[in-house]
Amino acid sequence: MKVEIITIGDEILSGDIVNTNVVFLSEALWLQGLIVDYQSAVRDDPNTIRQALLLAARRADVVIVTGGLGPTGDDFTIEIAAKTFHKKLVQNKSKQALIPSGAKVYLNPVGTAPGIGLKFKGVSFYFLPGVPKEMKALFGKNILPEILAKKKGKKIFKSKLFRCFGMAEAELDHALSSFYHDKTEIGNVRVGFRAHFPETLIKLSSWGKTEKEAHKFLEEGISFLKEKVGKAIYGEGEESLESVLGFLLSSQKKTLSVAESCTGGLIASRITNISGSSSYFKGGVVAYDNQIKKDFLGVKNETLQTYGAVSSECACEMALGMQKKAETDFALAVTGIAGPTGGTVDKPVGTVFIALATPDDVVCYDYCFKLNREWFKVLVASLAINHLRLNLLSQ
Amino acid sequence: MKVEIITIGDEILSGDIVNTNVVFLSEALWLQGLIVDYQSAVRDDPNTIRQALLLAARRADVVIVTGGLGPTGDDFTIEIAAKTFHKKLVQNKSKQALIPSGAKVYLNPVGTAPGIGLKFKGVSFYFLPGVPKEMKALFGKNILPEILAKKKGKKIFKSKLFRCFGMAEAELDHALSSFYHDKTEIGNVRVGFRAHFPETLIKLSSWGKTEKEAHKFLEEGISFLKEKVGKAIYGEGEESLESVLGFLLSSQKKTLSVAESCTGGLIASRITNISGSSSYFKGGVVAYDNQIKKDFLGVKNETLQTYGAVSSECACEMALGMQKKAETDFALAVTGIAGPTGGTVDKPVGTVFIALATPDDVVCYDYCFKLNREWFKVLVASLAINHLRLNLLSQ
Repeated sequence: MKVEIITIGDEILSGDIVNTNVVFLSEALWLQGLIVDYQSAVRDDPNTIRQALLLAARRADVVIVTGGLGPTGDDFTIEIAAKTFHKKLVQNKSKQALIPSGAKVYLNPVGTAPGIGLKFKGVSFYFLPGVPKEMKALFGKNILPEILAKKKGKKIFKSKLFRCFGMAEAELDHALSSFYHDKTEIGNVRVGFRAHFPETLIKLSSWGKTEKEAHKFLEEGISFLKEKVGKAIYGEGEESLESVLGFLLSSQKKTLSVAESCTGGLIASRITNISGSSSYFKGGVVAYDNQIKKDFLGVKNETLQTYGAVSSECACEMALGMQKKAETDFALAVTGIAGPTGGTVDKPVGTVFIALATPDDVVCYDYCFKLNREWFKVLVASLAINHLRLNLLSQ
Repeated sequence: MKVEIITIGDEILSGDIVNTNVVFLSEALWLQGLIVDYQSAVRDDPNTIRQALLLAARRADVVIVTGGLGPTGDDFTIEIAAKTFHKKLVQNKSKQALIPSGAKVYLNPVGTAPGIGLKFKGVSFYFLPGVPKEMKALFGKNILPEILAKKKGKKIFKSKLFRCFGMAEAELDHALSSFYHDKTEIGNVRVGFRAHFPETLIKLSSWGKTEKEAHKFLEEGISFLKEKVGKAIYGEGEESLESVLGFLLSSQKKTLSVAESCTGGLIASRITNISGSSSYFKGGVVAYDNQIKKDFLGVKNETLQTYGAVSSECACEMALGMQKKAETDFALAVTGIAGPTGGTVDKPVGTVFIALATPDDVVCYDYCFKLNREWFKVLVASLAINHLRLNLLSQ
């Protein structure tokens, strides 16, 4: 079964945006053991779209088309598809849209433009909106199950995604190198890396004639992976550092507060992205100005004058002050210089102190990173969350 | 002149990596006024590669091919290209590589695999390594100038990006509809929309025979755009709501603090993404727990008991308390129910109150949105920042 993905939109061809839809679709299919054969992107031009549809009809069995279904003037994919495949457009009353006759309509759970399914010369075409959240919702719920039902001569496919923090891709790759037969295959398991700053994702995939065989191959790969780089793996699948932290805090019935200077609220924001976080996260202070550090966290004037705001002494006082005022079991505090301005010879841009107040004591970690402002914040927030995660794991 | 980019590699088709090469190439060409007509990605399979090359030879004038099977794989692609185009492979002594006869060889300044240029039926093919830094070095130095030299009847190209908030894509499109001659062209200006939740970006592009003409067309488009949807446009190019807010606060010498419940620190984090924000942003409180609202912001127990934490009364007290304690000119406060849990009949999931304390008074806005947790936070943070932006603009 040959699969093609066609993306429509000048914004892709002009390099204005990264085609994340094609990455999502390709990966979703791959996770089900289907590798996409062709990815094409074409402009918002009726004749070009027509040619792309006809080409796909000749070379593929399943074609997924995204983009050009929105409400604006440059969205006319369905109209062109109907003309290309000699279908009439008929008013679909329930969807308030023009739909090619004989087409299947998939209700969009998160937007207005429906998905459309069309058959042409035995080839299944699926038209989806280009807005990622709408495309994903429609694809996962309706389209993927239909495509899988068409799959013949099935090999059983298994895969698992691991999330690593604290080891770079090159280090992970090196640690696993004895495992490789050729560049990416390890026996019956395929290893894929993906950088997702500041994390690295490792995907193991296996194929087998039977469920049992595929499972066995995958488990062998997982054992090797955990033996070699287990300490860098913090989670699996859709987990995040903050969701794992949330699970640990919940299950240990502990509470947390945060005091942030250079991360400016990012740690609190990530922690509160997790549904249910109100049960363990009480809140925090974004202490950008020194006056806030003093008034809200009780940092001593003397500390600021002697050691400066970017110091382990200040970080520890911020963490202890936060912990005490919010009455939480743990408190994280960060203070640093995100840059690009504000650095000195002693404390260059990128200097950061992360303090963790626990029920027993307070510890401080210091780092220096040369990164742009936003990446610096992301990395520091991840490090802070990870320090607390490791502390909770050691309990 | 039609341009096609072909990317070769299973790692692209499996969704393992994002095809950044195609984004780089498309954007580099677009910045020179050349829009790519076709982007294709195919697997590491000789026959598929052959078909892709033949298809490109039929429909394009310039074809850029990147990637293959790794360092040795590039030779593989060249071998297939030679076969496909009926060229003999000959040893190129200086480059220690097999090169199709008649091919042009481009020295790789940062790696070993050279770039190869081939003509087939009047179509120019350029083969480049898949390693991004090698591809970029070869393309910028050698290939792009050659492609530009082929460009005939050169038209001058101009474009400008506008950022809109508060009007949906469909509304913007409707407001501009009288402007369209056909679906996307307005006289000599092309309008492109891009949804970038919760914003919509509008790109105007113009072409002219001379610099002056292209400029005139673009300015005409901009005038019309501003007349019709000017109130929704908050910025241009790389600006963001928070960078525009920062500019306004700086230039008016005003300071800001924030008190966040349901946005959990996201407003503060976005404000502090802007370099130099420490000059106008003092800090904030993430008041997730009611005790934090009372202890840090001075929200009255009576208010929480009478109206609840999710109320305009609480939002106003949060804003006023923050403003007073942080001694800032303005304070923003938000309280709401991000969901998916926590809703009631009176206050369903998605209810949110945004209060803005100014030097003169405090105003509160209320909304209800049905969105997932993360999108809810993003939209509410944007709304809060925008309310303050509008207030500063009206001063």
